[in-house]
Amino acid sequence: MFVLGIDPGLSRCGYGCVAQEGGRERAVAAGVVTTDRELSLPERLATLRHDLRELVRELSPDVVVVERVFFQTNVRTAMSVGQASGVALLTASEAGCAIAEYSSNEVKLAVAGYGSATKEQVQRMVATLLLLERPPRPPDAADALALALCHIASSRSARLRVAGGTR
Amino acid sequence: MFVLGIDPGLSRCGYGCVAQEGGRERAVAAGVVTTDRELSLPERLATLRHDLRELVRELSPDVVVVERVFFQTNVRTAMSVGQASGVALLTASEAGCAIAEYSSNEVKLAVAGYGSATKEQVQRMVATLLLLERPPRPPDAADALALALCHIASSRSARLRVAGGTR
Repeated sequence: MFVLGIDPGLSRCGYGCVAQEGGRERAVAAGVVTTDRELSLPERLATLRHDLRELVRELSPDVVVVERVFFQTNVRTAMSVGQASGVALLTASEAGCAIAEYSSNEVKLAVAGYGSATKEQVQRMVATLLLLERPPRPPDAADALALALCHIASSRSARLRVAGGTR
Repeated sequence: MFVLGIDPGLSRCGYGCVAQEGGRERAVAAGVVTTDRELSLPERLATLRHDLRELVRELSPDVVVVERVFFQTNVRTAMSVGQASGVALLTASEAGCAIAEYSSNEVKLAVAGYGSATKEQVQRMVATLLLLERPPRPPDAADALALALCHIASSRSARLRVAGGTR
């Protein structure tokens, strides 16, 4: 199973693809899609859409996992994160992929074991789980890999619950 | 010139197309694209995308005008409005249309003459300016027509400024 995590953003949109084979996870690809700040907003969204579509074509993920975003800090960023997440969800839907969404807290809980883990702790856990020498760079790529790992962990515990009956 | 206004929303996305011919404005089309609340978010975004693309194909607007959204009231709605606006801007960009964005206050100022006009006042002015017997229904469609009228008014005043030099 190939799981593609997407950490949505207009300036920097992280992606990370994890393969699950025989009970092991392996990083297949990780990086960042960027858009030129000099372009207009519609042009930047179209660039993001183009690059994400190519990525989905290339990797053929079974599941695309997009971070569920909320509005907390910077109102200007929140708007563009919302727009970028709309484009990511749309692209995955049109490609016929299954889609899952998790909040940042769910990712921390699944990957680092507790919801108040720091970003650095999550990134170190990503490296440990994927047997990488160091946390993937840039951080957006590591965050996207964490999303993919979160989905794999939660699918596994859902299967355990089914197998275990009441658990 | 055909100007298509889009008032972005996930449950209800208003649209209104205004033709400007010989210094007069005429409503060409107005309505609402809705998406089924029973569908998943990605499916709803894909439906919106499909319907907006059909609309742009059918109307062939020279300019698409999308309301510039901010986060004020309902945080849950703000997120889906952001996602819907991303899809609208993307669709217009990929169709090769020119794109303009105006805030709700700019629309009120251009159409009703002052930025603190009520929604009802703006809707009545839309009817007056487009020689309609009553404000278009539903309100989302009237808001979208107001966006188109705002763009026409601001293009006109930009031309006047150019022609008048210092004015």
